[in-house]
Amino acid sequence: MVEDDLISARNPFPDGIDERLSAQLAFIAEADKLKTILRASPLAAADRRENDAEHSWHLALMVVLLAEYANEPIDIGHAVKLVVIHDLVEIYAGDSPVFDASSRLDQREREEAAADRLFPVLPDDQAREMRELWDEFEAGQTPEARFCKAIDRLEPMVLNWFNEGGTWRMPGANLTTIRARESGVVAGSTSLGAATAALVDEGVRRGWIRDGGAQDDGSGGEPVA
Amino acid sequence: MVEDDLISARNPFPDGIDERLSAQLAFIAEADKLKTILRASPLAAADRRENDAEHSWHLALMVVLLAEYANEPIDIGHAVKLVVIHDLVEIYAGDSPVFDASSRLDQREREEAAADRLFPVLPDDQAREMRELWDEFEAGQTPEARFCKAIDRLEPMVLNWFNEGGTWRMPGANLTTIRARESGVVAGSTSLGAATAALVDEGVRRGWIRDGGAQDDGSGGEPVA
Repeated sequence: MVEDDLISARNPFPDGIDERLSAQLAFIAEADKLKTILRASPLAAADRRENDAEHSWHLALMVVLLAEYANEPIDIGHAVKLVVIHDLVEIYAGDSPVFDASSRLDQREREEAAADRLFPVLPDDQAREMRELWDEFEAGQTPEARFCKAIDRLEPMVLNWFNEGGTWRMPGANLTTIRARESGVVAGSTSLGAATAALVDEGVRRGWIRDGGAQDDGSGGEPVA
Repeated sequence: MVEDDLISARNPFPDGIDERLSAQLAFIAEADKLKTILRASPLAAADRRENDAEHSWHLALMVVLLAEYANEPIDIGHAVKLVVIHDLVEIYAGDSPVFDASSRLDQREREEAAADRLFPVLPDDQAREMRELWDEFEAGQTPEARFCKAIDRLEPMVLNWFNEGGTWRMPGANLTTIRARESGVVAGSTSLGAATAALVDEGVRRGWIRDGGAQDDGSGGEPVA
């Protein structure tokens, strides 16, 4: 990696801070970049897009408050860790909007490369730990990862609800692609999946969501808004 | 409280979502406002101020990565919960910059009133749970609360380090008031307190921090920058 690109390279920590803690603080400083990565989702509270750091915080709050709806018992502390780190790779890989099929084609490749570059800023033991947490989230094979992925899908739906459809009106979004996201909520929480379906059904009724036919493959097209 | 001020009042959730989950989602939507509360701290990664949601996320990441330095053993999951919710009252109370003595005069009163208004948006059991977590953080009497308060003080110091002093140059900031913040880090972590002292010492050497005499009571004065 190009060490000079690190925020910590702009102003190395003083000698009084040892090598291990310097590496940890360098990672923590580098993580500040997550605050500059914009998502497609509009905020509910202001007229601008959400960034990844805000999104990650919101997921952590939701995990704490909605854990009772998980399909399987979860360790809340572990789940909160997963959501806090789940988007860090986007510092280098950028956000891949869910309804932007083209950006998702090479998403896995870009994010793996970003993980290989970012996590080794940490001391080896923590680089491994963070990578394992990220891999766990991505694989979605543990109860916590399944629930966190459900929350990751639900949060933008709640923001859309307060934005007359929000990203549901983007090119590539239609009832088929939105129902696919809904099924990701069901996998972690049947109850929250049912709530998501209620939001989507009402979104359809209000004309915020267009019907998705076979001809609409999510690769683009005219926005409804 | 004025229910109409709630984000959820703009667009009530559909009937298919039951009362308990509607209350939880109303709180989650209301929490979106934390993304609009600006702190005094500048980001390291961009030329703008940090907001409370980003700050809360950054603290959560730091708690996970720096827990080994806590003076006492801590439950990381519990500590992460504390930092995720610790600033929520600022949705109504606003941020009280640490070096702005006047805004801190009635801070406790404003934040208690905000807590009385915000947490009851949740179902009763969770309103009590969130209030207890916030009270625990504020009191700073548990190992987790002490450590989280240390991290809450350390994070803006790291941002200042990449901003040629950042808030250390604000009116009211001087070596006396900054050392007082440093002692809050020591209370949760002697090691991180020593690292903070190294940053502050170097800040003094570079002229980013002015000496604080008895005549400078933190109530204002000319900024150094």
